[in-house]
Amino acid sequence: EEPPQPSVGDPYAEDPPRHPALKINTLKPFNAEPPSEVIAENYLTPSPFFFKRNHLPVPLVDPAAYRLHVQDACGRTLSLSLRDLKRSFRKHDVVATVQCAGNRRAEMNALQSTNRLGWGIGAISTACWGGVLLRDVLVHAGYQPGDEGHVCFEGLDRDQSGTVYGASIPLKKAMNPEGDVLLAYEMNGEELPRDHGFPLRVVVPGTVGARSVKWLTRISVGPEESKSHWQRKDYKGFSPAVTWDTVDFSKAPSIQEMPVQSAITEPSPDASVTPGELTVKGYAWSGGGRNVIRVDVSLDGGKSWREAELTGEEQLPGRAWAWKLWQLKASVPTGTKQLNIVCKAVDSSYNEQPDTVGPIWNILGVLNNAWHRVRISVGED
Amino acid sequence: EEPPQPSVGDPYAEDPPRHPALKINTLKPFNAEPPSEVIAENYLTPSPFFFKRNHLPVPLVDPAAYRLHVQDACGRTLSLSLRDLKRSFRKHDVVATVQCAGNRRAEMNALQSTNRLGWGIGAISTACWGGVLLRDVLVHAGYQPGDEGHVCFEGLDRDQSGTVYGASIPLKKAMNPEGDVLLAYEMNGEELPRDHGFPLRVVVPGTVGARSVKWLTRISVGPEESKSHWQRKDYKGFSPAVTWDTVDFSKAPSIQEMPVQSAITEPSPDASVTPGELTVKGYAWSGGGRNVIRVDVSLDGGKSWREAELTGEEQLPGRAWAWKLWQLKASVPTGTKQLNIVCKAVDSSYNEQPDTVGPIWNILGVLNNAWHRVRISVGED
Ligand SMILES: [Mo]
Ligand SMILES: [Mo]
Repeated sequence: EEPPQPSVGDPYAEDPPRHPALKINTLKPFNAEPPSEVIAENYLTPSPFFFKRNHLPVPLVDPAAYRLHVQDACGRTLSLSLRDLKRSFRKHDVVATVQCAGNRRAEMNALQSTNRLGWGIGAISTACWGGVLLRDVLVHAGYQPGDEGHVCFEGLDRDQSGTVYGASIPLKKAMNPEGDVLLAYEMNGEELPRDHGFPLRVVVPGTVGARSVKWLTRISVGPEESKSHWQRKDYKGFSPAVTWDTVDFSKAPSIQEMPVQSAITEPSPDASVTPGELTVKGYAWSGGGRNVIRVDVSLDGGKSWREAELTGEEQLPGRAWAWKLWQLKASVPTGTKQLNIVCKAVDSSYNEQPDTVGPIWNILGVLNNAWHRVRISVGED
Repeated sequence: EEPPQPSVGDPYAEDPPRHPALKINTLKPFNAEPPSEVIAENYLTPSPFFFKRNHLPVPLVDPAAYRLHVQDACGRTLSLSLRDLKRSFRKHDVVATVQCAGNRRAEMNALQSTNRLGWGIGAISTACWGGVLLRDVLVHAGYQPGDEGHVCFEGLDRDQSGTVYGASIPLKKAMNPEGDVLLAYEMNGEELPRDHGFPLRVVVPGTVGARSVKWLTRISVGPEESKSHWQRKDYKGFSPAVTWDTVDFSKAPSIQEMPVQSAITEPSPDASVTPGELTVKGYAWSGGGRNVIRVDVSLDGGKSWREAELTGEEQLPGRAWAWKLWQLKASVPTGTKQLNIVCKAVDSSYNEQPDTVGPIWNILGVLNNAWHRVRISVGED
C-alpha cells in the first residue's frame, strides 16, 4: 500500500522514507511497528524495522549548524556542536531496548477503546546506541553527583503552534555512573536515522521510550519535572476505575522504569499450524536494568507451563538494558484442534506479569504487560 | 495453648519466651506470625508481634564476650566488640520492612502442598532498625566502592552437627551509599530482642528476609555467594513445572530483591459482616526500594476496582524500604450475600501483582505475590 503523497504546506512533507513492510498506526505523525514475525529475527533490530514513535513532524536538521544547548549549573547556556560533543567526551556504546508505554495497547483497546494508537506487540526494539554519556556532559556543565532534581530535554520537533516535544528524567538516573544514559549520535554503528532523532537523541536505558527525546536541542536541570504535556498529562499509569471525568494527573507518578514484559512473535494468530513440531518464539524485557531470568510458555492457556530457551548478550548486574529473545520447541499431538499459547517472563527481582488485561486497563492505554496470548487453530496433519 | 515444656538436652531449651497471641507454624525452630488483624495495627510492628522466622535454635549470647569477626581486604580477621562497633561508627536508623520469601505460602500449599511452613499473610513486619552501616564497616576493613563479589554472613545459630545459618548479598548492594544495609543492634528504639538476632543482626532493606542474618558472628567478602544451604539450595524461584526430580538449583538466581506484594488484613475470612459500612485494611510493599504508588481493591473478585487510601512515612526515591498501610471504606448494599475482596498493589516501576497463585506456584513455595483474596459471607442487616 502506497502512503498518500504529502500536500503543499503539509508539516509532514519533509518526513523521511520508511520501509514498506512496517505496520503503520498513524502516518502523520508517523507511528509504525515491524511485523510480528520480524520483531525477534534479530537481537539488534535493523534500524528500518525499529519501531517509529513520532509525536510531531520529523525535523530536518543541518548537522553543521546543529547546536546542543545545555543550561549549566551557574545558569549560563553552553552551546555544543556535534564536533564538540564527539571531541570533548569519550564515546560509549550501549545496547538497550526501547519500549513505548503504549506497546500492546491494541489488547487494551479490544476490551474498551482508549481512542489512542492501537500498537500491537511491536512497539519495542533493541539497538546498539553510540554516543556520549549524559553524565559526562552534565559534569562538564558543573553538576555534581548527589545533586537533586530533574533533567529536562527538548526536541527540535514542534507543531504549528510552536509546542515542542519534551520530557524529563530524575537527575539521579542521569548522574548514576551505572545509569548509562546516552546522548546518542549512532544507531547500530551508523549515523542516527532521521526517524530516530538525527543528529542527536537521548537514550535512557531501562526507562519508557517517551523519555528518550529525539532531535535533542536543549538540556536543563531544575527542581521540577518537565512541564511538557507528555511528562505531565500523558505517560502515567492509572487504575482501571479512573475515567476522563475523574482523572487527576498530579496523583500518578510519570512512568520512568517499566515493568517486566514479554510477547509471542511466532506463531502469529493467523499461522497455519499442523500437528508435529512447533517452534514458539518471542521477546522478554524488564525495566530498571533488571535482567529477564526466565520465560514460561503454556500451550493450554496457562494450565501447564514449560521454560523457554533464552538468548541474549551478557549484561552487567543491574544494567540489563536489553531484551532476551526466547524460543520453545514443542510437539503438537495429532488430533489437537486448538492451541492457546501464553507467555510470561520473570525478572531478576522475581517480578511476574499479571495474568489478564482487564484489571490493568487504563484510560491512557499504557503499561500493558499482561500475559501475551496467541490462540491458533491447528489444521490436519 | 501452652507450648510443651523443653526436655533435657533439648537444643531449643534456651529459646526465649514469646507472645502467646502469635500463630505458631513450628515451635522448634520457632516460626510464628502475628494474627491477621494485628499486622496492620501499627506502622512499626511492636517487636513481640514482629514475625519470627528461625532456622535453628536461638543462641544465648553474652554481649560482653561477643565479637564480630570481619575478614578484611588483606585477608586478616578483625575482631570487633559491640562497644567497638558503637564507638567507631556512626549510628543510623532505617525504617525497613522484612518479608520472608515464604510469606503467603499457605495459599500455595492449598493448591498443592510444598511440605513447608504454611505461612499466612503475616510473614512480613516493619521496624525501625538502629545500628551501623555495613558499608562503613567494610570501608574500615579496606574494601572499595566498585569492588565486585559477595558479602557472606554467618550467624551464631547452629544445629547439633555444627551447621550454621549463612547467606550472602552482592557487595554492590552492601557498598551502595543508598543501599542502607545495617548491622543493627536496636529494634524500635530498644535493644535487639533475642528472637531477632541479639546482639547484632544484618538488615538488608528491600531484600528477602533470609539475607538479614541474625546473631551475626562473621562477615567475609569473596567472589562467590555464600555456600550455605539457604543461599544455594533454598530461597530461589522456579517455574511451576519444576519438580524435586528435575530441579537444578544452579539454574535460578538466589532471591535478593522481592516483587511487589500486598494483602488484606481486615476483614478476616471468618469475620461477620453485615450490610452497611465496611472498612477493608491491609499492607503493601515492594522490594528494591521501590515505593508502593497505588493499591486497588475489588469487592467483586476483580471485576471492578477502587483505590485504597495509603498511609506511611515519607521515604527517599529508590529507598522506599518500608511498607504502606492502606484502607478502603466501602458500603455493602442490603441484600449482598457474599463479598469476594481482592487487593493488588502497584510499585514505582509500575510492577503489578499476578492475578492467580497457580502459575507462580513452585516447589519451594516462595514468592507468592498473587492478588490476595478474602471471601466473606454477608449476614442479615
Ligand atoms: Mo511512547
Ligand atoms: Mo525467609
